[in-house]
Amino acid sequence: MRDKTFLMIPGPTPVPESVMLDIARHPIGHRSSEFSKILENVYANLKYVFRTKNDVFVYTSSGTGAMCAALENLINEGDSVLSLVLGNFGNRWAKIAASRGAVVEKIEVPTGEVIDPEVLRTRLAQDTEKKIKIVTLTHSETSTGAANDIKTLCSIIREHGALSVVDGVTSVCAMECNPDEWGIDVLVSGSQKGFMIPPGLAFLVASERAWKVYEECKHPSFYWDWAAYRKSVQANSTPFTPAVNLFVGLNTALEMIKKEGIENMNARHKRHSLALRNAIKAIGLELVVKDDKNASNSITSILPPDGITVPDIRKVIKEDFDIVVANGQNELKDKIFRMGTLGFVCDRDLISAVGALEATLYKLGYKFDLGKGVATVIKELANK
Amino acid sequence: MRDKTFLMIPGPTPVPESVMLDIARHPIGHRSSEFSKILENVYANLKYVFRTKNDVFVYTSSGTGAMCAALENLINEGDSVLSLVLGNFGNRWAKIAASRGAVVEKIEVPTGEVIDPEVLRTRLAQDTEKKIKIVTLTHSETSTGAANDIKTLCSIIREHGALSVVDGVTSVCAMECNPDEWGIDVLVSGSQKGFMIPPGLAFLVASERAWKVYEECKHPSFYWDWAAYRKSVQANSTPFTPAVNLFVGLNTALEMIKKEGIENMNARHKRHSLALRNAIKAIGLELVVKDDKNASNSITSILPPDGITVPDIRKVIKEDFDIVVANGQNELKDKIFRMGTLGFVCDRDLISAVGALEATLYKLGYKFDLGKGVATVIKELANK
Repeated sequence: MRDKTFLMIPGPTPVPESVMLDIARHPIGHRSSEFSKILENVYANLKYVFRTKNDVFVYTSSGTGAMCAALENLINEGDSVLSLVLGNFGNRWAKIAASRGAVVEKIEVPTGEVIDPEVLRTRLAQDTEKKIKIVTLTHSETSTGAANDIKTLCSIIREHGALSVVDGVTSVCAMECNPDEWGIDVLVSGSQKGFMIPPGLAFLVASERAWKVYEECKHPSFYWDWAAYRKSVQANSTPFTPAVNLFVGLNTALEMIKKEGIENMNARHKRHSLALRNAIKAIGLELVVKDDKNASNSITSILPPDGITVPDIRKVIKEDFDIVVANGQNELKDKIFRMGTLGFVCDRDLISAVGALEATLYKLGYKFDLGKGVATVIKELANK
Repeated sequence: MRDKTFLMIPGPTPVPESVMLDIARHPIGHRSSEFSKILENVYANLKYVFRTKNDVFVYTSSGTGAMCAALENLINEGDSVLSLVLGNFGNRWAKIAASRGAVVEKIEVPTGEVIDPEVLRTRLAQDTEKKIKIVTLTHSETSTGAANDIKTLCSIIREHGALSVVDGVTSVCAMECNPDEWGIDVLVSGSQKGFMIPPGLAFLVASERAWKVYEECKHPSFYWDWAAYRKSVQANSTPFTPAVNLFVGLNTALEMIKKEGIENMNARHKRHSLALRNAIKAIGLELVVKDDKNASNSITSILPPDGITVPDIRKVIKEDFDIVVANGQNELKDKIFRMGTLGFVCDRDLISAVGALEATLYKLGYKFDLGKGVATVIKELANK
């Protein structure tokens, strides 16, 4: 049943009906006073969601666009960038930096693990000449479901003096993320994630320190240029024709987030990912991220049981239960599957998802204590 | 009546109901076979609309994004670029080129005029050392409504050996534009124009000659990188998470264009803009573009009559008749107003628009032969 399809991938995520209906309205002129009022509200609410006093820029682009918008406003050819890599998206920072002619060094960890703050501290301490200009890092690594302790890592980076540039694509809304308080210099995110709207918009917020580095950037990219966006935000406008329908949907979604409260939204995501993790363990499957404290609130990576393949699991849960779960990426393809609990997800969804996963494994011949996953979720969810 | 609002600005343009309803469907996974089938159809139909055998790339961005995607894949620091400027958007090419460190020379013409092919020929003939690497130009200049003879200009550029990079944002769909046959090296356009969908997608097609220059580009931008897009098009995929809802709408809109036929669509736009121009003259108002052969099919710029202001005209036609027309941009603000006849516009719309304009001018005290504009449109439209 196509219309029953429920997305449990890390994005696009489910979109509330009221948001979809707003997106379906005929586009309005992007230079009209009506649209300007929507922008005023959007820009104010984004500051609330990003917990920042700085302007939040909205780009008409994929989340990767905002990652480019971060580095292409900071890097000059030959600059040194240190990339902390947990997986595919940590690597994307390194690739973007290299595409601008930066000299990129990587600290990589095995799949499912996170950056040890002491490793970072040691590496930065060696950089006595302060050559490292930027450290890129990932809050929630979408390809593995591991989540860094951004607060600690960014404080170490701040001590050294480099800029911290953080991928918050699947963390903002889902996990506590406090750029001003934690000293994150640039934070980016995307619309089709915790923001509960379809893909097509991306977000960026920069610290005053980052602005100083921007001012020394020889060739900031025209489309992503921070100065143009700051000027526009302050005039409740956009530099170029924005995806107006998505902005109208974003306005509605941000009001929903404000009503729930960002702390409550973070707590809901934590509760859901923990319930899912415990259910997976109860069923007897292995998690990619071993330690709860290193787990993302938005995405959980799971190893299939012996003798059952990832494509079979994805096929049955889709065809029989209309739930879409993600495959692994690149070298993790067919080795793991990933379940998103990101954005517009309620307690009932968790019960049905774990129930459907149990039913899928049962059909595929996996021997386990049927019902134990759902029982675990029910107990976990009762801990409100 | 908000829901009666009719956009006669040069974009966003009116969107068909069937497209809006498709956009309102819940997002599907961008790596699903269902979405891949949509992309296959979209990519095939874009080749038809762009009249090209080359792959057409779709960026999740504003039209300006595709302009950056053109130059940021071609220019190295210090390259010479010649920009032919009819107005605001011709100037945008020059700014983007400069932002990449190019040495930019401009040939500018007064408002409403177009580039004289002989002026271009003379300038390029002086460039005996073939220093000029790229010539940027505009097909339909959205800020004035003037349209260049792209076919002739691009053949002159091809003779010299530079690349021609053409802004077709408000021309593709509305005017004949034949990149392969005319030797256009890079052509870009935007979704919220002739394509009849909301803003958020942009298009680019490059010639084999342009690809050779791309291969020498030292730092192609990561987000716009042609190689990544070509690889994705050939796999019916996208490099990054695309604005899936807009793609679904685009698929529907492209089917409508194919059904109408691209030549018929071009002819409809020509008929509409000519009917509007003649009606404006019949009412006694002055057109910014004097000569029909230099007029865009998609946008018509008009001077207000003595004693009546542009803001008053825009206010009355909006408040009394729910039609939005555009102001002038930059130094043309409040000096001209612009009426779009772009995309999803039928004959009846022309009659009602000219009637509403007459009613607006009548209310504002302009003395003229009331009804003559509509009479002119009716007669013009009868020439099918």
